Amino acid sequence: MITSTSNPKVKRLVNLRKKRKARDEEQVFLAEGLRMCREAPARLLREVYISEDFLRRERKAVDELLRGKEVRAEVLSEHVFAYAADTKTPQGILCVVSRRKPSEADKIRELCGGEAGKSPLILVLDNLQDPGNVGTIVRTAEAAGATGILMSGDCVDIYNPKTVRSTMGSIYRMPFRYADDLPYAVQRLKDMGVRIYAAHLEGRGDYDAENYTGGTAFLIGNEGNGLREEVAALADCRVRIPMEGQVESLNAAVAAAALMFEAGRQRRAAKRRCMSGASIVK
Amino acid sequence: MITSTSNPKVKRLVNLRKKRKARDEEQVFLAEGLRMCREAPARLLREVYISEDFLRRERKAVDELLRGKEVRAEVLSEHVFAYAADTKTPQGILCVVSRRKPSEADKIRELCGGEAGKSPLILVLDNLQDPGNVGTIVRTAEAAGATGILMSGDCVDIYNPKTVRSTMGSIYRMPFRYADDLPYAVQRLKDMGVRIYAAHLEGRGDYDAENYTGGTAFLIGNEGNGLREEVAALADCRVRIPMEGQVESLNAAVAAAALMFEAGRQRRAAKRRCMSGASIVK
Repeated sequence: MITSTSNPKVKRLVNLRKKRKARDEEQVFLAEGLRMCREAPARLLREVYISEDFLRRERKAVDELLRGKEVRAEVLSEHVFAYAADTKTPQGILCVVSRRKPSEADKIRELCGGEAGKSPLILVLDNLQDPGNVGTIVRTAEAAGATGILMSGDCVDIYNPKTVRSTMGSIYRMPFRYADDLPYAVQRLKDMGVRIYAAHLEGRGDYDAENYTGGTAFLIGNEGNGLREEVAALADCRVRIPMEGQVESLNAAVAAAALMFEAGRQRRAAKRRCMSGASIVK
Repeated sequence: MITSTSNPKVKRLVNLRKKRKARDEEQVFLAEGLRMCREAPARLLREVYISEDFLRRERKAVDELLRGKEVRAEVLSEHVFAYAADTKTPQGILCVVSRRKPSEADKIRELCGGEAGKSPLILVLDNLQDPGNVGTIVRTAEAAGATGILMSGDCVDIYNPKTVRSTMGSIYRMPFRYADDLPYAVQRLKDMGVRIYAAHLEGRGDYDAENYTGGTAFLIGNEGNGLREEVAALADCRVRIPMEGQVESLNAAVAAAALMFEAGRQRRAAKRRCMSGASIVK
């Protein structure tokens, strides 16, 4: 058991927690909590750390988690675990996870849903800075049936521990990509027939008056400043989410949710129409 | 200028920040940042505190804020301000605000939109614990045209500084009420003709297959555990937000947003139909 915060393994964990550079260099991220450790794909789960007390309370869960995997769990004293963890009241288990590596060749295709035959539904995040917001967006995107997330290079690190936690596991499954040259990447989406909508306070039409059943991407801007003009300029269409009262803007995750669920609603309705049409033909 | 953290005024501020009881006793809350101070209704703004540096940088904004009001600004040294503030990197201005006091007689009527002649659109929050989530819900509710928010007595304190901040000012405008006896309060809504929908993982129908143009209330459950069964049992109808992928649940603020924006969408569409119908009659 590790009982000192100056142990090199502990120092490395703290480094991975705090520094994007350290995470990037090792191509890993930290995930805290039993659920996040359980959901990590076995081929990506690299190390597991548990607190003394967690081992005592949850030995069965730990055994189950490690069964059939090559990973062993390292035990830390309560004090040391709290030092390494990102949460204020840690559950007592965290893991180091390797990043998913989509083939470099076709990252854009992956964002569009690959070979699944689904219409692309993509979120493009421009300079988002709130780690919790980005995590919630990843989680919501998976739920709403999005095929991928494209982020400007200056978005918050998706491997930030708070972001990882807020995804509730969707980080293991949702295709995403950082683009240093966002306009270029968005142009690639257009080349693939994806229509680009900017969520914009100055959008002329209501968001729910557009048709999102074809290939669709939504541009979402920074929490405080909205979309940068050079990014908004890439849109085929600017849409507005109508707001009542004296609200000036929506939380970025809420705006993304409104757009994605509207796309999901339209696609389900189109499918129903298509199916009932087919039965009439028969 | 106050330069010591042991000054009684500073101690009181810290107490108001940390303790729900202290806030409840004085019937006030703290709001941080220039925007939140500006948006506070003049009749409710009780005290303003600024840091030395903020005064130097923003004297014009401070003068403008205080113009025509009876409140004076108290200046704190940087160190003391940081000690009193809730944020890690404070802007340098905070205020103490009195709570809005709806007439005790008709709080439920206020939640239903009062005399505005609008169909009630109410969120009922059951045991929500995340301060940021509740603040985002209040902000989203105003934007989506909700008429009021009803909370179980064990929800997080809406006057928690983080919640106040997340509302981005909507706390000054959105009618809300805590109900120690939530079932009783929901029954009162039903008596007024409001139809009650529970957002529930086991809902049978999709949420977008229901009609929300009449008086509507959505029950939203705790972040981890969902709705308590005795609360869900009050619903006329359980609806499900369809989720793709392996997502087990949505963030509470995202679920609330999906439901409220769907209600808003239907209401706008109904209004358009109504208006075009009227022009045909002409």
